Amino acid sequence: MEDSKKYILQEKDIPTAWYNIIPSMPNKPRPYLHPGTKQPLKAEDLYPIFSQEASRQELNVTDSWIEIPEEVREMYKIWRPTPLVRARGLEKALDTPAHIYFKNESVSPVGSHKLNSAIPQAYYCKKEGVTNVTTETGAGQWGAALSLAARKFGLELAVYMVKVSYNQKPYRRSIMQTYGAEVIASPSMSTRAGRKIITDHPNYQGSLGTAISEAVELATSTPNCKYALGSVLNHVALHQTVIGLEAEKQMEMAGEYPDIVIGCFGGGSNFSGISFPFLRHKLDGEYDTRFIAAEPASCPKLTRGVFQYDFGDEAGYTPLIPMLTLGHEFTPANIHAGGLRYHGAGAVVSQLMEDKLIEATDIPQLESFESAIMFAKAEGIIPAPESAHAIATAIREAKKAKEAGEQKVILFNLSGHGLIDMSAYDRYLSGDLVNYEVTDADVAESTKNLERII
Amino acid sequence: MEDSKKYILQEKDIPTAWYNIIPSMPNKPRPYLHPGTKQPLKAEDLYPIFSQEASRQELNVTDSWIEIPEEVREMYKIWRPTPLVRARGLEKALDTPAHIYFKNESVSPVGSHKLNSAIPQAYYCKKEGVTNVTTETGAGQWGAALSLAARKFGLELAVYMVKVSYNQKPYRRSIMQTYGAEVIASPSMSTRAGRKIITDHPNYQGSLGTAISEAVELATSTPNCKYALGSVLNHVALHQTVIGLEAEKQMEMAGEYPDIVIGCFGGGSNFSGISFPFLRHKLDGEYDTRFIAAEPASCPKLTRGVFQYDFGDEAGYTPLIPMLTLGHEFTPANIHAGGLRYHGAGAVVSQLMEDKLIEATDIPQLESFESAIMFAKAEGIIPAPESAHAIATAIREAKKAKEAGEQKVILFNLSGHGLIDMSAYDRYLSGDLVNYEVTDADVAESTKNLERII
Repeated sequence: MEDSKKYILQEKDIPTAWYNIIPSMPNKPRPYLHPGTKQPLKAEDLYPIFSQEASRQELNVTDSWIEIPEEVREMYKIWRPTPLVRARGLEKALDTPAHIYFKNESVSPVGSHKLNSAIPQAYYCKKEGVTNVTTETGAGQWGAALSLAARKFGLELAVYMVKVSYNQKPYRRSIMQTYGAEVIASPSMSTRAGRKIITDHPNYQGSLGTAISEAVELATSTPNCKYALGSVLNHVALHQTVIGLEAEKQMEMAGEYPDIVIGCFGGGSNFSGISFPFLRHKLDGEYDTRFIAAEPASCPKLTRGVFQYDFGDEAGYTPLIPMLTLGHEFTPANIHAGGLRYHGAGAVVSQLMEDKLIEATDIPQLESFESAIMFAKAEGIIPAPESAHAIATAIREAKKAKEAGEQKVILFNLSGHGLIDMSAYDRYLSGDLVNYEVTDADVAESTKNLERII
Repeated sequence: MEDSKKYILQEKDIPTAWYNIIPSMPNKPRPYLHPGTKQPLKAEDLYPIFSQEASRQELNVTDSWIEIPEEVREMYKIWRPTPLVRARGLEKALDTPAHIYFKNESVSPVGSHKLNSAIPQAYYCKKEGVTNVTTETGAGQWGAALSLAARKFGLELAVYMVKVSYNQKPYRRSIMQTYGAEVIASPSMSTRAGRKIITDHPNYQGSLGTAISEAVELATSTPNCKYALGSVLNHVALHQTVIGLEAEKQMEMAGEYPDIVIGCFGGGSNFSGISFPFLRHKLDGEYDTRFIAAEPASCPKLTRGVFQYDFGDEAGYTPLIPMLTLGHEFTPANIHAGGLRYHGAGAVVSQLMEDKLIEATDIPQLESFESAIMFAKAEGIIPAPESAHAIATAIREAKKAKEAGEQKVILFNLSGHGLIDMSAYDRYLSGDLVNYEVTDADVAESTKNLERII
C-alpha cells in the first residue's frame, strides 16, 4: 500500500516574518517607472492605489525580513500551518527513485494559497482607515480570498470578475457573494476603461488586464478606497513566502533538502512563495537547487516573452514594470487554468530569469489534465487546473530521474484544489479540451507596440 | 480581532481502534430481521451483500474496541488527524458566553467525513478478494469518498446516483469520474428495481432508497461484487468514531469538556462519529453531556418518525432494521442538504433515542442557510448544507446560553464544506429557497403500510 506521509507543524511554527529576496539578489530588479514621466517610482506614488504599508513593502530593497503583524498571524491560524506531504502514491505510480514532496496550500478555506496575501493586504487597509477595497479576479481564486479577508476586517469589497468566468463559473461568484462581496462582470459600464472597451468591442468577454483597469480606476476615483492585487507584485510574493518558509522546516523534519522546487506560474505569487525561501540558500552558495516555473504553453511569457517595461493592466493605468511579457494586449487562449492567463511576470522573477537563477517550462493543457488525474488517483486530492501545471512538471522531472537512475528530491507547491473546477475535468474526460500554441509570430505581433525602454 | 484557535494532533494520535458503543448500551438495539423469515440475522446472512469483516462488525455486540488495520490508518494519514477549532469568530458574532468548538472534517480530499468509512470498507473488500463494489449516492459526498477509496485499493466501482442529483450536480459526478468510478443515474434500466420504478413512474427523478435497491441488486447478482453503504449501519458509525476519539484528545488540549455535542443527521454516520466516544462517558456516569442530532424539518424521522422495523431501501432488499422511520416509501422534499434526505435512523441511534440518552431537533431550510452564512463570514469556511444544520443547532444553544448567562461548552461536527454546493447558496441568496414542513398526517400516511413488529 502507498504510505504518503504528512509533515505537520504547530501554530507556533507559522513564520513571524516574511522573506524579502530583493536585498540578496545579485542584480536588483530595475525600478518601476511612472507611466507619464518615465521616472523611477517612489512609494508615495503608489499610495493612491495601494495601502501605504503595501506600497512601502513593494519598494523595499533593503530589509530581508519583514515582520508579520500579530493580527495577520492570528488569522493565518484559521488554516496554517499547511501540511507538507511525501507523495509516495505518486512516486509508486511513476515507479521513480525520486522523492516527491508537495506543500498542500489547498487546505485553506477558499481552497488556494491566495489567502496568504489577501489577509495582510486587507489588514493594512483596515489599519490605515480605508473602508472600501476593489480588486479583479479571473478564475475567482483571488476574488474569493480577498472577499473572506475583507469580511474578517469589516471592509466593503467590489470585485471585477472577468465576464467569461462570471458567466461560466457561477460557483466562484457565489462564494464571493456568500462572504458579502459585490461582484461585477468586467468589462462593465461602471468605469471609463470598461465603457471604452464595451463600446469598441460590444461582445468582449473580458480579460484580467481589463478587470485590473476597472478596479484600479474605481479605487483611484473613490474616497477612502484602495486596490489590492493577487499576484505579480513584490509585496504579494513577499506575503506568499510563508509557504516556502514552512516547507523549509518541514523538509528538515523529513531529513531532506529539495534538488528541484516547482510552482505553477501566472503572475508569480505561488511560485515565488514556495521558491524564494529556498532560493536564498542558492544565493548564499549553500545549495545548488533548480527552480522551475511551470507556465501554460498558451501563455508562455517566461519562455517566449520579451524582457521590457510593460503595463500590468490593459488600459495602462499601472506603473511601467520591467517584466518578461507577451504584451499587455496579449489575449491568452481560454484555457481552464484561468489563474495562469496573465501576460507578464513580476519584476523580481523576470530579473531572476534574466540572471538564470531560475528556469521555466511550458505545459500543454492536455498534459496538465493528464497529470492532474494521475495525481488525484494516486494522492486523493483533485488539483486546481493551475496547480496541475506544477504537477506535470514534477512528473516530467521524476521520469527524468528514473531514466537517469537518480534519487532526486522534488518539491512542488499544490497551490489549490480543483473541487470548484470540475466542469473543466468534465470537459477533459469528455475529450473536449485541446492544446493551444503560441508562435513566435504571435509574440512579435502582441509585443510590437511596446515602447523599447530596456 | 477574533482569534479562532486550532488544536492540532500529530499522525501518531490517529486512533488505533474504533469505539463500538453497543456493548455499553443499557438496552441493546433489537436485532436485524431476515425480511422473509423474520428471524434475527447472523453475520453470514450479510455476506452476500457486504464484505465479511464489515458484516461481522455490523453484528458485533461484545467488543468495545475494534482495531483499525494499519493499512487503513496509513490511508487516514492523507488528511487525518483533522483540526479541532475554537470558533471565537462565531462566539463574537453571537456575543455569547458559550465556548463553541467544531471538529473540522471538511479538510478531507473529498470535502467530508465520508472517507472515514469508505476506506475501511474498500480495504476489507480488497483483502477478501472482492474486485467490484457498488454503492448509491444522493448528493454525491459518499459516492465521491468511495470512488477515491476504491481507486486507492484498485477496486472497480459502480455508483448509482439519484437522478435529480446526477443532472443538477454535475460537479460531484465529475469528481467520481475523475477518480475512475462508473456513475449511473438512478433509477436506471440496468436493474429490476430500476426498471420497475421507471415503468411505473416514467418521470421519477430518483431517491436514495431506490438507488440503494439498485446497488444492492447489482452486488448480489454479480460475481465477486460487494455493496458498501455510507451511513445508517453500525459498522459505518463505528468507523466514524475516529472523529469523536480525536476530538476527545483535542478538547483535553483545550482544557475543556463539552456540555453539548451536536451533529447533523441523515442516517447517523457523522452524528454517531462525533457523539459516541463522548457518550461512553455519559454511559459510565462520568459526564452528563447532552447529545443533539440536527435533522432537517423536511425529513424529521427522529422527532416525528415511528419506532418500527423497516427496510433500508425502497424496494425492500435489505434486512428489516429497528428504526425511527418515516417509512421507506417516504419522499423527502428536494432540500439542498441532499445527504439528510433519508427516511430512517440506524438501529443504535434509534434505541438511544428511545432510551432518552440523546435528543434531536428540527431545522428549517432557511435557518440552516442563514446559520451557514453567519458561520462562513465568522470562521471563513463555507459549510456543506448538511453541516449547516449542526451549525444552526449550535447557534440556537449558544443563544440560549447567552439568555441564561451560562458559559456552556458546545462542540459540533463540521462534517463537510460547501464549495461544491454553491448553487444552493446562490439560490438562497437570490431568495429562491423555501421551508418545507412535514405534518403528522404526512407521517401517518407514509408509515401506514409498515408491518407492526415492535
